Amino acid sequence: MRKGYLFAPGPTWVPPEVRSAMAAPILHHRAPEFAALFERVAEKIKYVFQTEQQVLILASSGTGSMEAAVANIMEPGDKAIVVRGGKFGERWADLCKVYGAEPICIDVEWGKAVDPSQVGELLDQNPDTKAVFWQASETSTAVCHPTYEIAKVVKEKSDALTVVDGITAIGVFDVPMDKWGLDIVVSGSQKAFMLPPGLAFIALSEKAWKVAEKSTQPRYYFNLLKERKSQAKGQTAYTPAVSLIMGLEVALDMIREEGLENVFARHQRMADATRESMKAIGLKLLAPEAPSNAVTAIWAPEGIEGAKIPKMLRETYGITIAGGQEHLKGKIFRLSHMGYITEVDMVQLIAMVEVVLSKLGYSFEKGAAVSKAQELLF
Amino acid sequence: MRKGYLFAPGPTWVPPEVRSAMAAPILHHRAPEFAALFERVAEKIKYVFQTEQQVLILASSGTGSMEAAVANIMEPGDKAIVVRGGKFGERWADLCKVYGAEPICIDVEWGKAVDPSQVGELLDQNPDTKAVFWQASETSTAVCHPTYEIAKVVKEKSDALTVVDGITAIGVFDVPMDKWGLDIVVSGSQKAFMLPPGLAFIALSEKAWKVAEKSTQPRYYFNLLKERKSQAKGQTAYTPAVSLIMGLEVALDMIREEGLENVFARHQRMADATRESMKAIGLKLLAPEAPSNAVTAIWAPEGIEGAKIPKMLRETYGITIAGGQEHLKGKIFRLSHMGYITEVDMVQLIAMVEVVLSKLGYSFEKGAAVSKAQELLF
Repeated sequence: MRKGYLFAPGPTWVPPEVRSAMAAPILHHRAPEFAALFERVAEKIKYVFQTEQQVLILASSGTGSMEAAVANIMEPGDKAIVVRGGKFGERWADLCKVYGAEPICIDVEWGKAVDPSQVGELLDQNPDTKAVFWQASETSTAVCHPTYEIAKVVKEKSDALTVVDGITAIGVFDVPMDKWGLDIVVSGSQKAFMLPPGLAFIALSEKAWKVAEKSTQPRYYFNLLKERKSQAKGQTAYTPAVSLIMGLEVALDMIREEGLENVFARHQRMADATRESMKAIGLKLLAPEAPSNAVTAIWAPEGIEGAKIPKMLRETYGITIAGGQEHLKGKIFRLSHMGYITEVDMVQLIAMVEVVLSKLGYSFEKGAAVSKAQELLF
Repeated sequence: MRKGYLFAPGPTWVPPEVRSAMAAPILHHRAPEFAALFERVAEKIKYVFQTEQQVLILASSGTGSMEAAVANIMEPGDKAIVVRGGKFGERWADLCKVYGAEPICIDVEWGKAVDPSQVGELLDQNPDTKAVFWQASETSTAVCHPTYEIAKVVKEKSDALTVVDGITAIGVFDVPMDKWGLDIVVSGSQKAFMLPPGLAFIALSEKAWKVAEKSTQPRYYFNLLKERKSQAKGQTAYTPAVSLIMGLEVALDMIREEGLENVFARHQRMADATRESMKAIGLKLLAPEAPSNAVTAIWAPEGIEGAKIPKMLRETYGITIAGGQEHLKGKIFRLSHMGYITEVDMVQLIAMVEVVLSKLGYSFEKGAAVSKAQELLF
């Protein structure tokens, strides 16, 4: 029987309440009902971003909000310091290059977090740096870069903007934009926001807006000045993804109802239990020192082809997890505990990882992972 | 966070494919499109009932099809032999009384299956018995009565009709209506048919139809002669539950695609694993000798108030199972493995039963139930 289970780091499960809302009759985006909905959503999303600033909602995948960040603040020739410790760090660097900016990359070993003092040193060497880019959660390596510490060192050393990819961080763990003085934070709908892909979110500090106002870059769809103006009036500059925004309101209400602190605590518990349960059966984490609470990356055991783990989970049991990307392909597997996932789901996933590892010939104390998860989760 | 898990013996999970079909624009029940749909569904459901007879579709809960069975064949004063070993056995007896028939009950201890020789003896004593009623699966006690053997003894001894409540049997385990010569089989939508409640199904043998044709009982909504005539032309006598029938087609296609034998095998595996996993942590089954593959009833451990098990599962973890009914209330709990449920789900449920039993103070070898389930299911 076909039945699917979704434990990949995006898209994540969509709650039935959200699916119902998205199935309601579609609103016309220039009708007053839509403007009213949009205004409510624009207000409610600030709670999740922990900001008083406008959070702009774009009809794109998360990459769109990353491009918008670069395109609206970086001019040709501008220097950027980019933390490059995974596939999404690479994306910041690529985007800077596309817009003619000069990325100075800190190449961090995949699985490790950046040392904020490296950012400080580079800022000392490049006092004219326009912005520093990094991932709060680097999805490809399951690493949590030290956002608070990086932002702090940037502020101490320079006037550069702090630009944070929060795609798998916002709604997962604490990244308070205003409190930590972050200048740009981006995220996307198909992660902790519990929606299908199709919406990107971006918030700018006043300082970032001042820079954006002077931008000379060619940009149209991702012109944030235009969006700021439109969205302040309950409209988007271009046709919004109406049904996703209808669902977003329900998802935001769910997050509000649970409470951000409880949301973070749930992710923390599930992440801790996942890490400890994998260690309990002798597996090693890719990022033991600075793991993200969005996803856990685990080295495939010696002698087992890593790609077979997600393959068997999916093909035999209908469970989608992620493998490794780039040079980690076939070497790691990634279990997500982000979004509409409970402790009850994690026990299921961990039991099934045991089953698959056992079938693939890995020898371990059976039940040890599940027992560890039961102990830590309940 | 609110998230629900459904492991009660009905209503059961509804597959997303079925929910989507039910959310499609509603058809008018006198339009040709509906007649075409109804004709397809009426044909497809025969596969699940394993019959060449018409399977009538009623807009009612399963009880409606039980009433239809009684009201269409039993006259005032007619004798019925009723196997009464649970709440639903009682219902057959009650229905016979309501229609003025005389039920001769075989009171079977709850948790035990009837001995077919008892049916034979009663038939010897009451050669004028009009019909014998029983449950193929008695949901309240998780017992499987020996349908093949009962039908055989009835045929050997008498001319009585065999009337089988297959509400939690059809689509769960093998009850081939035609092959075993069953005269009436009833079922309902919210069990192995993977639909919400609201549809009842009933099929009659030619012999049963001959009896129904002579019925003098007052009956209108459950007049099967009228339904037989209407439904043969793609219409129901009264307004059908259109959206449920739209969903039914998808559910029937899913059952066909999986194949009845595989459906039965899946239920068998899940039921076996549930029983063995509960035994592995020292628990006792209510029906160890003749368990139904639809649901497993387990005695709450000594010293633990049984009602707390479903209560904690539901209130703390969002998992719905069933408790006991009538005099078994607070003494047993029932785990369903019927319908849109996979082995992957059962591991989750069993892990959570361990968690709750442990929290309620039951001492057992932790992990033993999950390990047993992993071993048997995968």
